Amino acid sequence: MQSLLQANAEKAAEIKDILKTKKVLMVNLISSPGAGKTSLLEKTLPKLVDKYNVAVIEGDVETDLDGKRLDGYGVPISLINTNGACHLESISIEKALSVFDLDKLDLIIIENVGNLVCPAEFDIGEDYKVAVVSTPEGADKPAKYPLLFQEASLLINNKIDLLPYINFDKEFFTNEVKKLNGNLPIIPTSCKNDIGIDEWVSWLEQKIKMKKTD
Amino acid sequence: MQSLLQANAEKAAEIKDILKTKKVLMVNLISSPGAGKTSLLEKTLPKLVDKYNVAVIEGDVETDLDGKRLDGYGVPISLINTNGACHLESISIEKALSVFDLDKLDLIIIENVGNLVCPAEFDIGEDYKVAVVSTPEGADKPAKYPLLFQEASLLINNKIDLLPYINFDKEFFTNEVKKLNGNLPIIPTSCKNDIGIDEWVSWLEQKIKMKKTD
Repeated sequence: MQSLLQANAEKAAEIKDILKTKKVLMVNLISSPGAGKTSLLEKTLPKLVDKYNVAVIEGDVETDLDGKRLDGYGVPISLINTNGACHLESISIEKALSVFDLDKLDLIIIENVGNLVCPAEFDIGEDYKVAVVSTPEGADKPAKYPLLFQEASLLINNKIDLLPYINFDKEFFTNEVKKLNGNLPIIPTSCKNDIGIDEWVSWLEQKIKMKKTD
Repeated sequence: MQSLLQANAEKAAEIKDILKTKKVLMVNLISSPGAGKTSLLEKTLPKLVDKYNVAVIEGDVETDLDGKRLDGYGVPISLINTNGACHLESISIEKALSVFDLDKLDLIIIENVGNLVCPAEFDIGEDYKVAVVSTPEGADKPAKYPLLFQEASLLINNKIDLLPYINFDKEFFTNEVKKLNGNLPIIPTSCKNDIGIDEWVSWLEQKIKMKKTD
């Protein structure tokens, strides 16, 4: 296990070096199954593709269902099937990257396997981990799965359109997040009602610019 | 990894032997984070405790939040903190069982760590795996995380009260489940509106009786 983590970390460092040279931003989306990562990408990509060269790495245990949903958005997609594994590792990211022309990219968004636990443990060469938590999952998720929220640089609180129909204690949620990571910005979003998408896209654009001048 | 799985399987077989002798049914609840396993237990326990001796094993990465929610229902609770691990293993179940008087129990319900992937891979000595999928997670979860649905003996489709507010293709969901496991019964439930709880409790009661006469 220790040597596996070591090998993963070394490969992640290599990927970081390459992406630094190429000035390509890489963002790692992590959430529970069904929190809305793919829906978020469906809303995000149309707002980016005219200004930036974007690519997506789709991580899934099996199937290409999410990859198919993103077909037609005009971005290259590299699919990783983990064959049962519950998270992506840097060795698969290296392979996934090999199908892209890094000289022509500004941004790579990774959709990790749906899992709140293990993906947070593996650095896969990304610049930022972005946590996505949907409101019906409950406000206790940060407290119960703390590592992701400690590691993340942004928290997207998705499906806020469902707030009228569920018990979701926003104050508890925000306070628990603050306890774990005082600097973690939270963007409330609804992919259904197009709320917060522009703010999230602005966050990405700012990070793309930072990476160019890094 | 292979020897870890082997050790887990051997310990699971030991647990199965003990529970067979003691005629105690053990059910393993598996779901994504926030699918409603604890809420389901909050609705289930009051319907069982007058007739049966029930205990709960709470699996969590950290915290005793779920265990606390189940305080006051009159059942002994054994908490397992996995310290970061994304699933329960039989070695922890053995320890958790040691705090119960098995001669006085009819049913043990395990609430596994919130994760659709890894818990399905580990036999922990249970009689049945029960999958819980909540409607806001989306109808594509069985197809995307097939192992759990192949391993499960019952599928609880929770949070059906949210159906009017979300896109959830029931027919697609049911068909995908059938493809993976033709014998998997589905019970639609709403903990909020008390739908399907009696059916689930009946399922448990039937299995308790089967275990007694096994």
